[in-house]
Amino acid sequence: MTTTIQQNLISGNEEYASAFNQGNLALPPAKQYLVLTCMDARIDPAAAFGIELGDAHVIRNAGALASDALRSIVISQQLLGTKEILLVKHTGCGMLTFQEADAEGMVRKNLGEDAHAELQSHNIGFGPFPDLEKAVKDDVALLQRSKLVADGVAISVVCGERAVGDYYQTVSRLILDSFQSSYVLV
Amino acid sequence: MTTTIQQNLISGNEEYASAFNQGNLALPPAKQYLVLTCMDARIDPAAAFGIELGDAHVIRNAGALASDALRSIVISQQLLGTKEILLVKHTGCGMLTFQEADAEGMVRKNLGEDAHAELQSHNIGFGPFPDLEKAVKDDVALLQRSKLVADGVAISVVCGERAVGDYYQTVSRLILDSFQSSYVLV
Repeated sequence: MTTTIQQNLISGNEEYASAFNQGNLALPPAKQYLVLTCMDARIDPAAAFGIELGDAHVIRNAGALASDALRSIVISQQLLGTKEILLVKHTGCGMLTFQEADAEGMVRKNLGEDAHAELQSHNIGFGPFPDLEKAVKDDVALLQRSKLVADGVAISVVCGERAVGDYYQTVSRLILDSFQSSYVLV
Repeated sequence: MTTTIQQNLISGNEEYASAFNQGNLALPPAKQYLVLTCMDARIDPAAAFGIELGDAHVIRNAGALASDALRSIVISQQLLGTKEILLVKHTGCGMLTFQEADAEGMVRKNLGEDAHAELQSHNIGFGPFPDLEKAVKDDVALLQRSKLVADGVAISVVCGERAVGDYYQTVSRLILDSFQSSYVLV
């Protein structure tokens, strides 16, 4: 049995494959940087930042949490040679819309007590944040403080409503004011 | 100071923003599915599968490890309503090229003993896999077994060299043979 979504993914991939001619790209990212952003369906990092195929690692999780990405960041930097980080968070993020207790309650109600116990055994916290600007600062601080992130790595922050529009500019300036000048905020 | 990479990301985003007209997309993914794939620089999920903006969550980490994505998967399914999972792994993955001890040694050598201690305090394992087919099966089993993933969720697996070309077809068929027919493998 094939779902409609599966059919669409298969036909989408057939079209892509028929025109694909970049099979010779190397494993290490050519431009030696990584992007950490949210899983949000409205973000297409390659399109939004003009990232060409083969240029950069792209790490995505719910909320673009740096803590959740540390394993991937170390692999990217230590084994595959990336040297810069672009952290992209955004207004309208799902992580701004709930609290830890809400998510735990949802797990209990929809998935049962066993699921809740599994959360605890894996030590999974959902990590929602009520304040976007604080979340950006906390994550930059975490990346700077962590011994797992090489010293001297340039960290850029983009923060916007899907990185587009006036609101985006406003939020960026807001954060720029309270950041050190060593960050480039676009 | 601005690096060349930062300049390129800024100009890439300016170009994208100037033509952007999809600011009205809703937070929950319109097509109610999520894609879990590798951070590999040679994978552009939106292009490779024809995923339209707003349609699907995209989770990416080193190796597309399901265990690393559980937090995001629960948020995607329980708070934002997704009901299908597309797991995309690929030949030529960096996770096939090293062992746990190699990565730990690299951390010790390049970042120092404090960094290694931080790994352990966060309980971070790098999770490399020597056998791609086994890694795919293990992750599907994990998703099926986990109480945190809702019952009845359709799981599709794509496994290929950047999901393109003859090798991709071969690997997919290989995995198809050893999977139950309830998986659609493209």
